[in-house]
Amino acid sequence: MRLLHEQNVEKIALGAAVLGSGGGGDPYLGKLMAIQAIKEHGPVKLIDVYELSDNDLVFPSAAMGAPVVMLEKIPNGEEPKKAIAALENYLGKKATAIIPIEAGGLNSCIPIYTAACLGLPLVDGDGMGRAFPELMMVSYGIGGKNASPMVVCDEKGNMVILESINNQWAETLARSVTVAMGLFTQMSIYVMSGADVKQFAIKNTMSLAEKIGGCLVSQSDASINPVDKIIKTTNACRLFEGKVVDVRRDLATGFIRGHAKFEGIRTYTGQIFSIDFQNENLVATRNANAVAMTPDLITLLDIEKGLPVQTDTLKYGQRLAAIGIPCDKFWKTEEALKVTGPRYFKYDFDYIPIEELEKQNGGIR
Amino acid sequence: MRLLHEQNVEKIALGAAVLGSGGGGDPYLGKLMAIQAIKEHGPVKLIDVYELSDNDLVFPSAAMGAPVVMLEKIPNGEEPKKAIAALENYLGKKATAIIPIEAGGLNSCIPIYTAACLGLPLVDGDGMGRAFPELMMVSYGIGGKNASPMVVCDEKGNMVILESINNQWAETLARSVTVAMGLFTQMSIYVMSGADVKQFAIKNTMSLAEKIGGCLVSQSDASINPVDKIIKTTNACRLFEGKVVDVRRDLATGFIRGHAKFEGIRTYTGQIFSIDFQNENLVATRNANAVAMTPDLITLLDIEKGLPVQTDTLKYGQRLAAIGIPCDKFWKTEEALKVTGPRYFKYDFDYIPIEELEKQNGGIR
Repeated sequence: MRLLHEQNVEKIALGAAVLGSGGGGDPYLGKLMAIQAIKEHGPVKLIDVYELSDNDLVFPSAAMGAPVVMLEKIPNGEEPKKAIAALENYLGKKATAIIPIEAGGLNSCIPIYTAACLGLPLVDGDGMGRAFPELMMVSYGIGGKNASPMVVCDEKGNMVILESINNQWAETLARSVTVAMGLFTQMSIYVMSGADVKQFAIKNTMSLAEKIGGCLVSQSDASINPVDKIIKTTNACRLFEGKVVDVRRDLATGFIRGHAKFEGIRTYTGQIFSIDFQNENLVATRNANAVAMTPDLITLLDIEKGLPVQTDTLKYGQRLAAIGIPCDKFWKTEEALKVTGPRYFKYDFDYIPIEELEKQNGGIR
Repeated sequence: MRLLHEQNVEKIALGAAVLGSGGGGDPYLGKLMAIQAIKEHGPVKLIDVYELSDNDLVFPSAAMGAPVVMLEKIPNGEEPKKAIAALENYLGKKATAIIPIEAGGLNSCIPIYTAACLGLPLVDGDGMGRAFPELMMVSYGIGGKNASPMVVCDEKGNMVILESINNQWAETLARSVTVAMGLFTQMSIYVMSGADVKQFAIKNTMSLAEKIGGCLVSQSDASINPVDKIIKTTNACRLFEGKVVDVRRDLATGFIRGHAKFEGIRTYTGQIFSIDFQNENLVATRNANAVAMTPDLITLLDIEKGLPVQTDTLKYGQRLAAIGIPCDKFWKTEEALKVTGPRYFKYDFDYIPIEELEKQNGGIR
């Protein structure tokens, strides 16, 4: 157990946004919410997965929707607490700890906020080790847990409790409710025992996020470019360096879907690069060859400062480095790839790990 | 109190479909469900609104969605019971009686089915005295009751509990859930005390439906055309007699919306007639002049047998009589017309009662 203070949150917000793979929500807003809650309620106890007792009752706390909407439609702060309370009330049981559902700027900070407000410990782990766009793409669910009963709340005061027959239906129903509520909601979902969390969580991802974030805020080694620090810390491949020359976004069926094009700079001058996304970055190509694909992480970083740029804030003229981070080994099983591999997203090819693509394409690590 | 047996249900199903104003769901399917339940569980006690004690807890039971979908996607029969049980469980209170939310073929029969299955009395009344397409268009809600907490169930086993900030949000959220569930669901909604029901219900509409249905199944007065019997029983205006020459339907945003055109026959030869609908018939015109409009009831009847034809079964070549039935006086207040008058449905004119239109247009009563 250790305590998360403001300075920890600063790092986690940025590092989790790197893991967010373009999604997971705006780290700035999440950071403000978490820091405000720590100021009001004191630091949050971050506990290791193995510090949980098997009988603990762990409630995940997360946002759902299209991250771009949150830039204008801001949570009022009651929703995450209300989602937990409504689910506690429905189940007739009290949460003893909070855990994130994914690693992402907002979705790693909201659980800190929720834990701070409720005076509960936060578990160092999550259900993805990155961010993914849909509710079945969670290690808790692939391991066999039900997403429902779950609660979805909006900032206006509307609340929905869902009981679905499977996790695909949980996604379908929660997505339609989220669209009706204005495309951005707060949830509680995938309630688990401590034993479940030990079995199913991707572990230590809060600490990993903090370490990555440290590359961006630390003043030490100022001679090393932050992008290089992140590449070293995450064991990433450098995919490209370029300028954004086109971004297309479509808010459709509850997601932000789109495509960005880049023209190479520095050693990549004369080359082209592209990224497709559905909330998160899905597939990156360099000179029309795939160089990274889901479930590996594809992250865009400001080329000078190393700050992550999400799919909702990507815009013309940004000079970015694209990096690819190998996903947690959990995602490389056949069962996990069924809901997170390229074919799930309608691409007509199978998953090839980034390390292998790097060899094929002669990438620069 | 009196008992509803199979033969009562036969009449209620048909009569309620006449009151359904083109909507309220297929009377045939609802009838089969209600009769089967009465066979299994015995007759249903139909009680007058004033037989309720003020402390009774009355649960409305209803279907939601686009009636046309139900022609292929049939309820499995568990949903209405499950909707009541889930809402009882959520509220921690037991239903002591069931009431319909509207008068319509299916939506008058589902409550009989539910009451029979649960061994509860059924209240002789409803929240419309006709059918309307949206959840705010209920006398219970206009009187001040909250639609939520409410439950929506599908035939697959998915279930949603909604708590909305107002009844417009209840409609928006329940509609989006219904669309996601496949456009046809069963609900429990607008839970009321006996005192509320006495204050807000449109009264004796089950009995009225049975009386209207009697015009269609009775063998007495065989010399009188069933359409004429219904006109007399409901104090209706005859609007037109014609052949359907065009029907357009669009399943959009959770409703069946459309338009039908008629060419006159008999005394209406050479004249034209049209109807717009959103689940229910909204506006009827004869030779381009409005002759009936929401919230008055516009109903199409088989010209020989008098059987009601709903918006989901309307088709080319049918020879129909169109009649207009004055709505309950409840709907003629400014507040009620706000959500049921023509302007709510985007028409650029105010409500004119059918009696007045009849005078203007020289209709034949």
